[in-house]
Amino acid sequence: MTAVVSHYSWVPPFAQGRVRDLRVRWALEEAGLPYRTETVLHEDKTAYRAKQPFGQVPAYDDGEVAMFESGAIVLRIAERSDALMPRDPAGRARVQTWMFCALNTMEMPLALLTEINVFSAGQAWTEGARPRAEGWMRQRLAELSARLGDNPYLDGDRFTAGDLLMADVLRNVPEDMLAEQPNLAAYVARCTSRPTFQKAMAAQMAGFTGSPPPGWA
Amino acid sequence: MTAVVSHYSWVPPFAQGRVRDLRVRWALEEAGLPYRTETVLHEDKTAYRAKQPFGQVPAYDDGEVAMFESGAIVLRIAERSDALMPRDPAGRARVQTWMFCALNTMEMPLALLTEINVFSAGQAWTEGARPRAEGWMRQRLAELSARLGDNPYLDGDRFTAGDLLMADVLRNVPEDMLAEQPNLAAYVARCTSRPTFQKAMAAQMAGFTGSPPPGWA
Repeated sequence: MTAVVSHYSWVPPFAQGRVRDLRVRWALEEAGLPYRTETVLHEDKTAYRAKQPFGQVPAYDDGEVAMFESGAIVLRIAERSDALMPRDPAGRARVQTWMFCALNTMEMPLALLTEINVFSAGQAWTEGARPRAEGWMRQRLAELSARLGDNPYLDGDRFTAGDLLMADVLRNVPEDMLAEQPNLAAYVARCTSRPTFQKAMAAQMAGFTGSPPPGWA
Repeated sequence: MTAVVSHYSWVPPFAQGRVRDLRVRWALEEAGLPYRTETVLHEDKTAYRAKQPFGQVPAYDDGEVAMFESGAIVLRIAERSDALMPRDPAGRARVQTWMFCALNTMEMPLALLTEINVFSAGQAWTEGARPRAEGWMRQRLAELSARLGDNPYLDGDRFTAGDLLMADVLRNVPEDMLAEQPNLAAYVARCTSRPTFQKAMAAQMAGFTGSPPPGWA
């Protein structure tokens, strides 16, 4: 059956284009698999939590499997297609390594930095937290940059599900910090200039047809 | 060939029993697969970074695949064995969901809390950061608790690679906070009382035979 991906019809402006259904849409575009969306209402997630216990998007159902966690869904899509992951065990292992690397090794420092720069922006405590958080992020970026080197993609010449998740994480790193590693900045631009990303992004943005939930200031 | 897992022969006392080779050792014990360890020296990681670009442990090599990222390695081990993941697509998808959930949805708030409680303990800024960080962690714990309910394991009656990673993340949540969700506290105790965990823990601890690197105060 056509896969179903959950999405929001409204999020605050700063989050538009950054909701995690984007990476699932992107993977489906890369794999050439059709999908339709299902809207999750912020004001009533009771039933939805049976599909996604944290009340977040995306949840995913392709008729054979029903699941959540964008990283796991992208892996499922990569397993359904030849487009995003080699079929040999060593190639699979390399791609899975980069997938977990994106969502753990790289996204943990980014989560701390985003708490400082976005969710708690302007609060006095953030200045005390900033040096270590920026140092942690910069170290990981420098190490990733050294590994990427002159390769177009993390596994060499071929775009994989590892690049998809890595680029979607790195595009949320502050632009001036990413620019300190020119090969990483070029890598993110290379990945996000793919027509599949552009199509996924346009689809997410076009889905914001709703209104703020009651009580949103 | 016998799998090779990298480890440190010395870490500071607070990190002993918490280094990420533990979860790989645990998975190998669950799968009944033999392994040997290879020591990484803190003072010279130059050559090691070819295996692990961030200079961390574990790296893993089983002769067929060479990889890093503990989550990806546990997935590889789960694919080599019937012990840690069902073989049907829906069951695989559920387990992979919990694996990414542990290392992203749950470990991101934990990383922030650990920065506050451990790495920056006592610094003035941490008190300003604490309310939101604790709120984020508590919300995720409550949601996970609601999903687990009365089940012994996340996928029901059977321990999987998802439980392995989830328990290894949750055992680092402050004990009093975990205790607010009694079913989660019991779940972590259930998982970590497995002889396989105990054996993996004893092996990690027995490996700390080295000395602090030069310059360590």
